[in-house]
Amino acid sequence: MNYGIVVKVLGSLLIFKGLMLMPAILVSFLYREAQVSAFLYTVILTLLIGIPCTRMKHSSRKIKAKEALVIVAGGWLVISFFGALPFYFSGSIPHLMDAFFETVSGLTTTGATILDDIESLPRGILFWRSFTHWLGGMGILVLTLAILPAIGVGGFQIFKAESPGPISDKLVPKMHHTATILYTAYLGMTVLQTVLLMFGGLDLYEALVHTFGTVGTGGFSIYNDSIGAYDSAYVQWVVTIFMIAAGINFSLYYEMYRQRVGNIIENAELKLYLLLLSSAMLMLFIYMQIQQGGIWTENLRHIAFQVASIMTTTGYTTVDYELWTPFSQSMLFLLMFIGGCAGSTGGGIKVIRILILFKLVKRQILKVLHPRAMVPIQIQGRMLQADTIASVTSFFFLYILILVGGIMLLSLEGLDLISAISSAAATLGNIGPGFGFIGPTQTYSEFSYLSKGILSLFMLMGRLELFTVFILLTPSFWSESK
Amino acid sequence: MNYGIVVKVLGSLLIFKGLMLMPAILVSFLYREAQVSAFLYTVILTLLIGIPCTRMKHSSRKIKAKEALVIVAGGWLVISFFGALPFYFSGSIPHLMDAFFETVSGLTTTGATILDDIESLPRGILFWRSFTHWLGGMGILVLTLAILPAIGVGGFQIFKAESPGPISDKLVPKMHHTATILYTAYLGMTVLQTVLLMFGGLDLYEALVHTFGTVGTGGFSIYNDSIGAYDSAYVQWVVTIFMIAAGINFSLYYEMYRQRVGNIIENAELKLYLLLLSSAMLMLFIYMQIQQGGIWTENLRHIAFQVASIMTTTGYTTVDYELWTPFSQSMLFLLMFIGGCAGSTGGGIKVIRILILFKLVKRQILKVLHPRAMVPIQIQGRMLQADTIASVTSFFFLYILILVGGIMLLSLEGLDLISAISSAAATLGNIGPGFGFIGPTQTYSEFSYLSKGILSLFMLMGRLELFTVFILLTPSFWSESK
Repeated sequence: MNYGIVVKVLGSLLIFKGLMLMPAILVSFLYREAQVSAFLYTVILTLLIGIPCTRMKHSSRKIKAKEALVIVAGGWLVISFFGALPFYFSGSIPHLMDAFFETVSGLTTTGATILDDIESLPRGILFWRSFTHWLGGMGILVLTLAILPAIGVGGFQIFKAESPGPISDKLVPKMHHTATILYTAYLGMTVLQTVLLMFGGLDLYEALVHTFGTVGTGGFSIYNDSIGAYDSAYVQWVVTIFMIAAGINFSLYYEMYRQRVGNIIENAELKLYLLLLSSAMLMLFIYMQIQQGGIWTENLRHIAFQVASIMTTTGYTTVDYELWTPFSQSMLFLLMFIGGCAGSTGGGIKVIRILILFKLVKRQILKVLHPRAMVPIQIQGRMLQADTIASVTSFFFLYILILVGGIMLLSLEGLDLISAISSAAATLGNIGPGFGFIGPTQTYSEFSYLSKGILSLFMLMGRLELFTVFILLTPSFWSESK
Repeated sequence: MNYGIVVKVLGSLLIFKGLMLMPAILVSFLYREAQVSAFLYTVILTLLIGIPCTRMKHSSRKIKAKEALVIVAGGWLVISFFGALPFYFSGSIPHLMDAFFETVSGLTTTGATILDDIESLPRGILFWRSFTHWLGGMGILVLTLAILPAIGVGGFQIFKAESPGPISDKLVPKMHHTATILYTAYLGMTVLQTVLLMFGGLDLYEALVHTFGTVGTGGFSIYNDSIGAYDSAYVQWVVTIFMIAAGINFSLYYEMYRQRVGNIIENAELKLYLLLLSSAMLMLFIYMQIQQGGIWTENLRHIAFQVASIMTTTGYTTVDYELWTPFSQSMLFLLMFIGGCAGSTGGGIKVIRILILFKLVKRQILKVLHPRAMVPIQIQGRMLQADTIASVTSFFFLYILILVGGIMLLSLEGLDLISAISSAAATLGNIGPGFGFIGPTQTYSEFSYLSKGILSLFMLMGRLELFTVFILLTPSFWSESK
């Protein structure tokens, strides 16, 4: 293990993270809040530790798979820890574990909160809290690599370890160009939503924090009632549409920019993603109209919002869906596992994997009838490699395995089955709210610190696509000499 | 499709099923019960329909994959329907759908019952009810093929479509010899447990019905309190041990008889099966001793019983485990999905598949670290074929998919999430009891007839390893000309 390069990259990351506090400091300063000092202490601390790290000597400039894994997992841990300090120093979140949980939840774009009364917090702190969603959404590390090419180390391994989805393609040959393209789309989406929300009557501050929560598929709000605090149908629809947009593979926005419409229309994952979203919305809508009636525009709005929010793993709410019928609740529960498209800011299993698994079942059915037939699995006319299929199937099983472990650990704390299942699923899938103990009107504050630690690990595993974190937990990773 | 041969085989099956009513008729006759007539009507009906069917003309004696599938699924449906008639004719179960559900549950060795007061039923009827477990356990069709080689058609396709587990091996070259060997072990186990239960003070009748429920991993009892009706620790331990024995691949008993102990010790699936059982028991036992205390022998007995019963998919109970702590309930809930070994009478996903999936995850971890390494997946030194792995992974995903469909359909009826999940899992895994609405003290009587139909389909799909039934539900199966 080339620890030199690991420490050097982590050091740069830390300095970059210090700079990322600037917008929050500005907000805090503009609103003349006392918490400015908490931010400044954090910045000083990150620089004091970060700068010496970047001076670290190292043997080779090449980052191997193993080092990339340590950098990614270590980077997320380091940033989460230092990102938690403003909450802790300002006294907004008195316990460090709680502050860490909140920051991990923010950076992984989960949106699970331990704050029972969000509205009592100062604006600068809440801005930072929401800004973590924006940072984490597209990957802090990819951002670092794009902005600081001065590090000059090969970044593709890191990109592969951090970016969601089974197939990582560079859009353009140069790594930092790919990152720039993705971030341009991300930035554009952010600006657009902010402006649209301001048309709806929100001031710049409110529009920004809710945009961060939307485009990062995070879900932190500054209101206890989440987006339900806005009565405006316009605002709720804008958020719905941008949640859906944030769940789409960002490289498709690049295709749109290059006017390659064919590539968008033919995208098999996008088709399934939109099909799943719209059919879930339609089923729930028809069911609710028949069962309960009411104003159809209102029903449709709330259903579209909740379905988009849960499936894209955002976690915003406009109503308490636990008051809905069992069928609607089951539907939302099952949507928790799907997630967004690969290469989006959404979490979960991801639509592309579901698609590949569907194709596997379809092939198996053909195989039973025609045992000697050779049936390749294709996505958009390209044959999938055996390696890709193996990575998808083992991802799916590992996802279930980790959930099983989580259910067991959480039930040790006395959680009933549905609460245990949904807390594990809501953190591993980076969603936020779930059912029962962590329903839409509840928070994660009541968990023990041990459970909060476990759930933080779940959020990190979910964000880093399981294997990156899981491998580091195996003894053989550390014992192997190579 | 060669319908001639399909009808011919189904006809023979029907005649055989008529003969299988004889033991129940004998019981009914010995206890001088009026229900003898209900059995006789059924026998006459089966013969009247079955005999003409066997005279059916057919083109070829060879059974192709497609015909085998129709024979197996159709066979189970036909036998379930005619097996339900004694319940219906005798008035013991007044509604035909209920009688069908109960028979499917018996034959698939599920043990889910719609009877709220079992003890009010006559003995002959209860004997038949339990006997369906015994018949279904090792596969009615395999039995038919073993006993009636006079049909003279190739049976391996049927064996493959009906026998549980991803790898179907003939123990000996001749199909009906394999069946004979398996049935000898089954019969031996039946005789042994019956004798041991009689030592515990049970009369022959009670010993037999509970043996049928155990060795078939079924779970029908003649008491509302299931095995809890017996205060005797001896009886409960005997049932525990035989449940575990019935969850082991029966071909290992043949190895035992041939004194090939090495093959038993090295069996990877057996090792994992015993490891899972014993570690679940140990964890629950330690946890219960610490949390609740009490008499340790009693705790151990109840824990061993419930763990063995749920994991082998038997479904007998000695206590109401819904009164246990959340941790214990979560553990039992998760065990519902594992099931017995391949080639046993147990249902569920099966231990061999879990083992293969574990190995897939392990290989994937290696692949992340050493992307170019070629890592074959081996079980007992034999490399697994890509086809086998694909069949396992697609089985696992299809299992989850069918569960998802079940949860949605059941929640339409107003079932809460945990009841919906556990009813779908308890029927698809051929277990019987679950949690919530179908907890150990409840029955399936309250479901609508539509849901009972869906759950019957789930039991059949689970017993026939998903694909056999699932394929018949696809339009392309019927539209293809070949």
